[in-house]
Amino acid sequence: MSTTSRPAARVGRPRAQGPVDSALAPRDQVLAAAAELFTRNGYAATTTRAVAERAGMRQASMYHYFAGKEDVLATLLESTVEPSLAFAAALLAQQGADPAARLWALAARDAELLFGGLYNLGALYQLPEVRGERFAGFRAARAELKAAYGTLLALVATDGTDPALRTDLLFGLVEGGVAVAREQGGRTPHAVAGAVADAALRFAGCSPAQAEAARRGGERLV
Amino acid sequence: MSTTSRPAARVGRPRAQGPVDSALAPRDQVLAAAAELFTRNGYAATTTRAVAERAGMRQASMYHYFAGKEDVLATLLESTVEPSLAFAAALLAQQGADPAARLWALAARDAELLFGGLYNLGALYQLPEVRGERFAGFRAARAELKAAYGTLLALVATDGTDPALRTDLLFGLVEGGVAVAREQGGRTPHAVAGAVADAALRFAGCSPAQAEAARRGGERLV
Repeated sequence: MSTTSRPAARVGRPRAQGPVDSALAPRDQVLAAAAELFTRNGYAATTTRAVAERAGMRQASMYHYFAGKEDVLATLLESTVEPSLAFAAALLAQQGADPAARLWALAARDAELLFGGLYNLGALYQLPEVRGERFAGFRAARAELKAAYGTLLALVATDGTDPALRTDLLFGLVEGGVAVAREQGGRTPHAVAGAVADAALRFAGCSPAQAEAARRGGERLV
Repeated sequence: MSTTSRPAARVGRPRAQGPVDSALAPRDQVLAAAAELFTRNGYAATTTRAVAERAGMRQASMYHYFAGKEDVLATLLESTVEPSLAFAAALLAQQGADPAARLWALAARDAELLFGGLYNLGALYQLPEVRGERFAGFRAARAELKAAYGTLLALVATDGTDPALRTDLLFGLVEGGVAVAREQGGRTPHAVAGAVADAALRFAGCSPAQAEAARRGGERLV
């Protein structure tokens, strides 16, 4: 499985001192610094000045790339959703392919993106600030991604329960499963992604034999 | 299904002005005020003074009940886990009962507690502050609750995958499923709890017939 562009996942391990990876473009240095500080110290407790310093630039230079702290956070959050959303759109277009294999592939790719990031940006989803106007794009992209899960889920099977609630629980399995799995070290994104995607198929009501076939098909799609 | 004591779930709808429900004991007024402000404005952005004011008391009086803001948050977080943990201990002791029915009951009760609260305290689990010493009790209780899920899950079925990761994903299904389900209005705690518990059985690998029997058994245990 491959991951797609996510700036915060591209940097090396954070250093105790000095700016973040100087091999990054300045804009990505800001994103990497912010991802580290927002998740380590909290969003409200992090100043734009601290982000700029961590990124090794003046605050005024940072404003060349971002309108402010909110703009940086929104960009980071969008980066946790948009690659999966693009992948989902491609999967939905493959109308001849097995829906269960496509659901496996979507859950695996999405979980790998969420788990593979150096910082747990998913922990920032529920900040009260994310209800604000600047985050409308992020919220819309996340809702669209959830809707793609719902479309594939309904193609795999319906079970007589409320489709919207069923979709929410599947989406919660992916986001929440990754969040809990991140709390323990020593796991690879690949292993977690496969386990999450297998769980998604069980959730969808696939029998073990169906799930095994869908996994094999899904691995070719990821 | 019944819920057990959780202070923040006991208050009425928040009012635009004035202190929280004055029928509560002063300590519970502090908890209700803090739950509202922490989830609405953020933890870091909320001062102890604002909590005291919202609770209709002087800051000095608040310190009669709590050592500080951290103490209030820890108490709130513990209240989201401890009732489910006590219920889990009772279920684990019923060694003659069907493990799948017990797993259904645990997931249902836990989901109902998390969903039924007036404020989404689960959104505060991932705050960086929660890594601190004062939250060791909360973290231990949550880990113990997760372990109870793992025990019941292993009794229902094993599937050859890493039991710790499997347990994490089940726990993430409950916590994350409730979190996503809360984002949309018009749902009852009972409906969400039943759907989460049904999903837990599918996750555990129960066939539809097994799950149906376990649900009936589980409803008697909740």
